[in-house]
Amino acid sequence: MKELEKRTEPVILDCTIRDGGLVNNWDFSPDFVRDLYRALDAAGVEYMEIGYKNSPKLLKADGAGPWRFLDDAYIREIIPNKGRTKLSALVDIGRVDENDILPREESPLDLIRVACYINDVAKAVELVNLFSSLGYETSLNIMALSRVLESELTEALEEIERSRADIVYIVDSFGSFYPHNIGYLAGLFRRHAPGKTLGVHTHNNMQLALANTLEAVRHGVTFLDASVFGMGRAAGNCHTELLAPALRNKRYNLRPILEMIEKHMVNVRKEWEWGYTIPYALSGLFNEHPRMAMAMRSSPAERDRYVAFYDRITSVETAPAKA
Amino acid sequence: MKELEKRTEPVILDCTIRDGGLVNNWDFSPDFVRDLYRALDAAGVEYMEIGYKNSPKLLKADGAGPWRFLDDAYIREIIPNKGRTKLSALVDIGRVDENDILPREESPLDLIRVACYINDVAKAVELVNLFSSLGYETSLNIMALSRVLESELTEALEEIERSRADIVYIVDSFGSFYPHNIGYLAGLFRRHAPGKTLGVHTHNNMQLALANTLEAVRHGVTFLDASVFGMGRAAGNCHTELLAPALRNKRYNLRPILEMIEKHMVNVRKEWEWGYTIPYALSGLFNEHPRMAMAMRSSPAERDRYVAFYDRITSVETAPAKA
Repeated sequence: MKELEKRTEPVILDCTIRDGGLVNNWDFSPDFVRDLYRALDAAGVEYMEIGYKNSPKLLKADGAGPWRFLDDAYIREIIPNKGRTKLSALVDIGRVDENDILPREESPLDLIRVACYINDVAKAVELVNLFSSLGYETSLNIMALSRVLESELTEALEEIERSRADIVYIVDSFGSFYPHNIGYLAGLFRRHAPGKTLGVHTHNNMQLALANTLEAVRHGVTFLDASVFGMGRAAGNCHTELLAPALRNKRYNLRPILEMIEKHMVNVRKEWEWGYTIPYALSGLFNEHPRMAMAMRSSPAERDRYVAFYDRITSVETAPAKA
Repeated sequence: MKELEKRTEPVILDCTIRDGGLVNNWDFSPDFVRDLYRALDAAGVEYMEIGYKNSPKLLKADGAGPWRFLDDAYIREIIPNKGRTKLSALVDIGRVDENDILPREESPLDLIRVACYINDVAKAVELVNLFSSLGYETSLNIMALSRVLESELTEALEEIERSRADIVYIVDSFGSFYPHNIGYLAGLFRRHAPGKTLGVHTHNNMQLALANTLEAVRHGVTFLDASVFGMGRAAGNCHTELLAPALRNKRYNLRPILEMIEKHMVNVRKEWEWGYTIPYALSGLFNEHPRMAMAMRSSPAERDRYVAFYDRITSVETAPAKA
């Protein structure tokens, strides 16, 4: 194992509401969100990502719950008394209205994370600098890293290094990385953004979300995304209840997370599907966005037609396009 | 990463029938077993463990299917034409009748694996030597390694090194190892049994079965246990459909394994439970045999009482024993 550089203590960012909302269209009850905040705070989890702070004016999202378009007053209504767990929100390039973001001292939010594809890093840097000047902790999350050319990534990292971002994330959007890939990327991030704290966001398509997160920790990554019972898009994320004890830090307490799972997650999981399935495994393996697999899983006639899905995902032929 | 020593090519041993039989009391139809053999052979998987070769005279096992007490003639009936995939059987110390084992040239079996606890290594060595003299490939699998003192393990390994065993296995019976534990153990095995091929058998309690298996490969372990759709006791094993593509060997073909899952495993999984659950995660985390968690999961009133289970598994109190 290589020497760890500049390592600080790992922290957990629970993104159950934000990434899990991609499963159930953010249909979380106020009780669910309130209980989750209390559980995470009692468990010693450092951050809770409570949703997206995109603007409904810039994004069509019929029927989405309130965690899709966070409103500061509503957050305060649900969580009137914050404990030690900080609150985070994610914004997407082109979907956030900068005017929606209050100065930090007027907002319940502590951290704003900006997600972008590699082509939009310049725009993301601009937003990060703005949010930083408003007093927030900030992170920049480059999505779909498994499809980014290394030369473009290193250029982007050098641009991010010059920005005000506190954290830069390794995001395995498609769940297609193995632990050795994560180790390699962490080294690359470290070399090209040496002044930044590193984060990792994993997906569980190949049942490697926890292992990839722990491998990232071995390479000096300290912001660790996870979700309770793994609730997140498609195969889901690293499980908070597995990550907290694996970190062996006396700060964490597993019992409140188990209470949350017993009280809420068992029922939510009966209504909504996430976690390991063959189509999600194949999406990860072939480095594909899970949208095709998610569509398949929601069709009763198609959901278990694994061989047809394999043939489709590995096919090099396409139907001729008629004029 | 340390230099790999004496590494040969990894091979997969699929133990769906043997370890999966612990889920459904070996209630696999002849069609299931036949289709599995064909699928594994077409997929390029090197070994199929077709069951236990214990003796019904030495073990009470009401209602168990035929794969619990393998009979050579019955194996031939189900698999009359062997392909390239070799057949393996597991025996337990004290439960196998040596007289049941024919010389290899008269048997469809190629490999006999002897499972034992650390206290029984001497007996296991005796059996391994006998089976080896009958012409079989042999392995010795020390179970529940996570509870073995290192000094006892190194002594046992030195005894095994002097035996006729071809392979010695790292067995994570309780699914309680992290990747760095596996790396450490592989180094220990390598130093104290330098003449042996190493194997690894993992359980998925903390969703680390694949990651632990890949970490073992990085440390020179070459016999890799897996099962289709992870079917194995409690949280199950490393998934064959994830391991084969991860090894990046042109020999493997994923499609026949997906056919098997689509045709058989989806239905079997509806009838029988294995895979990630909170009680199995806690068993792994606290290094416990899964029997308490399995009993809990089979009780409709108890199966989701995670907090009570946590309190029980972490309790240091026991009820006073009345005389």
